[in-house]
Amino acid sequence: MGDSELFDLSVDEWQAQREAFNEKVLGIAGLEIKRFFSLDGQCYREGALSARTKEMLGLVASLVLRCDDCILYHTIRCKEEGLTTEEFQEACAVGLVVGGSIVIPHLRRAAARWEELRQKQ
Amino acid sequence: MGDSELFDLSVDEWQAQREAFNEKVLGIAGLEIKRFFSLDGQCYREGALSARTKEMLGLVASLVLRCDDCILYHTIRCKEEGLTTEEFQEACAVGLVVGGSIVIPHLRRAAARWEELRQKQ
Amino acid sequence: MGDSELFDLSVDEWQAQREAFNEKVLGIAGLEIKRFFSLDGQCYREGALSARTKEMLGLVASLVLRCDDCILYHTIRCKEEGLTTEEFQEACAVGLVVGGSIVIPHLRRAAARWEELRQKQ
Amino acid sequence: MGDSELFDLSVDEWQAQREAFNEKVLGIAGLEIKRFFSLDGQCYREGALSARTKEMLGLVASLVLRCDDCILYHTIRCKEEGLTTEEFQEACAVGLVVGGSIVIPHLRRAAARWEELRQKQ
Amino acid sequence: MGDSELFDLSVDEWQAQREAFNEKVLGIAGLEIKRFFSLDGQCYREGALSARTKEMLGLVASLVLRCDDCILYHTIRCKEEGLTTEEFQEACAVGLVVGGSIVIPHLRRAAARWEELRQKQ
Amino acid sequence: MGDSELFDLSVDEWQAQREAFNEKVLGIAGLEIKRFFSLDGQCYREGALSARTKEMLGLVASLVLRCDDCILYHTIRCKEEGLTTEEFQEACAVGLVVGGSIVIPHLRRAAARWEELRQKQ
Repeated sequence: MGDSELFDLSVDEWQAQREAFNEKVLGIAGLEIKRFFSLDGQCYREGALSARTKEMLGLVASLVLRCDDCILYHTIRCKEEGLTTEEFQEACAVGLVVGGSIVIPHLRRAAARWEELRQKQ
Repeated sequence: MGDSELFDLSVDEWQAQREAFNEKVLGIAGLEIKRFFSLDGQCYREGALSARTKEMLGLVASLVLRCDDCILYHTIRCKEEGLTTEEFQEACAVGLVVGGSIVIPHLRRAAARWEELRQKQ
Repeated sequence: MGDSELFDLSVDEWQAQREAFNEKVLGIAGLEIKRFFSLDGQCYREGALSARTKEMLGLVASLVLRCDDCILYHTIRCKEEGLTTEEFQEACAVGLVVGGSIVIPHLRRAAARWEELRQKQ
Repeated sequence: MGDSELFDLSVDEWQAQREAFNEKVLGIAGLEIKRFFSLDGQCYREGALSARTKEMLGLVASLVLRCDDCILYHTIRCKEEGLTTEEFQEACAVGLVVGGSIVIPHLRRAAARWEELRQKQ
Repeated sequence: MGDSELFDLSVDEWQAQREAFNEKVLGIAGLEIKRFFSLDGQCYREGALSARTKEMLGLVASLVLRCDDCILYHTIRCKEEGLTTEEFQEACAVGLVVGGSIVIPHLRRAAARWEELRQKQ
Repeated sequence: MGDSELFDLSVDEWQAQREAFNEKVLGIAGLEIKRFFSLDGQCYREGALSARTKEMLGLVASLVLRCDDCILYHTIRCKEEGLTTEEFQEACAVGLVVGGSIVIPHLRRAAARWEELRQKQ
């Protein structure tokens, strides 16, 4: 099975779809949901901890909670923050050991996305 | 990306698929599984609490446990019970705050399905 | 085993302890944590849905996620909002069927706390 | 720290407390909760699979979902069904690898309870 | 809706995809991830408990944690170990009762895959 | 309610209890459990990522999975690695936003333990 068949959407298509979905949420959202979205962006901003460290925290949290969309989002952000492959896989190892073998299917997809992001450069 | 590309299946197609899958379960199910399915239907029936309230309970439970099939099922049922968009999004806000940002990808799909259901009318 | 041995803390003692713990969080909290706490209060306020309904949503979300502190908090609030025992147990039944037998130990404690709250009146 | 300080309750005291709590649930339970409790007992009965095998299934499910009360209940039942220590720890190993290091605190308590049960004989 | 539309991939295609994904993980994996993968294989090997029993443990753990890839993997292995349909559905019943109705969408797919595996023989 | 009543065990007593429990696990553990424990230690060692960063990853993973023992262990380790209060609370904020209000009871205890650790110095 070739690499091209591993995902239905490329990273770029996934991001466009994510935007389209976000518009749906904002189309019905009241104040609480809007404030949550704002807070969600805020907590990854540079502070006492770097944005780079916070994205790794988001990645590992998403891995152990096993949410592919969240894992992909933070994988993209980790790449943008300049993580090396070695750093990325060490963060993933913590997520795997904490979360167990049930994380493996998500780790597979994260690793394949990481390669896709490296080849895009 | 157009709305038509947001889901592989329309709500109607999803319901047909759900029926086909249910037949597979019933094809192998013993007494315990059959009793569970019966109990699952029973607990949403009008009682001291209205079916409307119970469907909202099912929706929020499904949101925080992050199961798209369950969320869609209760979203359809909430629409049938006559929830307004304002009521639907307030129930979703409780699920989002309790369950955290890991719920967001599911909330996106729930919001898009809600719009699909409104346009069907 | 008598009822008095079922819990280490009475509801009143638990609430005092909760306050003491909250002060610890606020003692270290930055803007994001403070905003989250504010949002957490906000999403249960009367709106298109009643505070009563929202507390039931919080209760069932807490049951299926199996957090005793959260369950007790919403059990107290459901009592304050005037739920009858029949309504309370129907909400619990939805949580039990959605979340499965793993919810039972939490349901046991919720039922015992409900009785404690009824006897306090 | 001596063994006597590892748990607040002995296995026998825990079982008495469990009974007291169950009475609280049954005191408020409607038909759905009662049917769930009946179904919960039923699914571990000897059938195509032995009660012994089913108790191991319940143990591992409880380990990966990380519920101490459920783990202790199935640990007691596994001992009653005659599991050897070697069999018990192999079932636990599956739960640990599937569920990850987050299972370890529960595994610690399960191992200590297993020893308590062996010494009771 | 015909059976052919229930899944995007046949069991054989899914296994080929799984292999392709595993190569992606191994392409970036350090020592910890490699050791975890080795341990994951090891804990299902024949020991004091049979491989057959261990695969059922893996199946039920995967059901209650609600991971389709893991459920399918252990469903295939249970079939290879010679489980009867009656045994398979009794193991599933334990998973359903422990994990609740949130497990049902996964149980549907497991039942459909079981039938697919039976027809392959 | 005074601080002295917030926890049954001090951090030092908790660590002694943890050791006593670990001996129980090792008393029954076969090769797989022993290898898992070894791997668990290994994945937090200094590598491409610092031990400091890895402990924060472990902390946030434990927060979103809501395990008090794991949170306390990584809180102690974060203190040993020299995290400032500002850094600790920013890591907690990511865990809170990802995991939702269901994390709050655990965050309360983590904040109280952090203060206990600061006063021990």
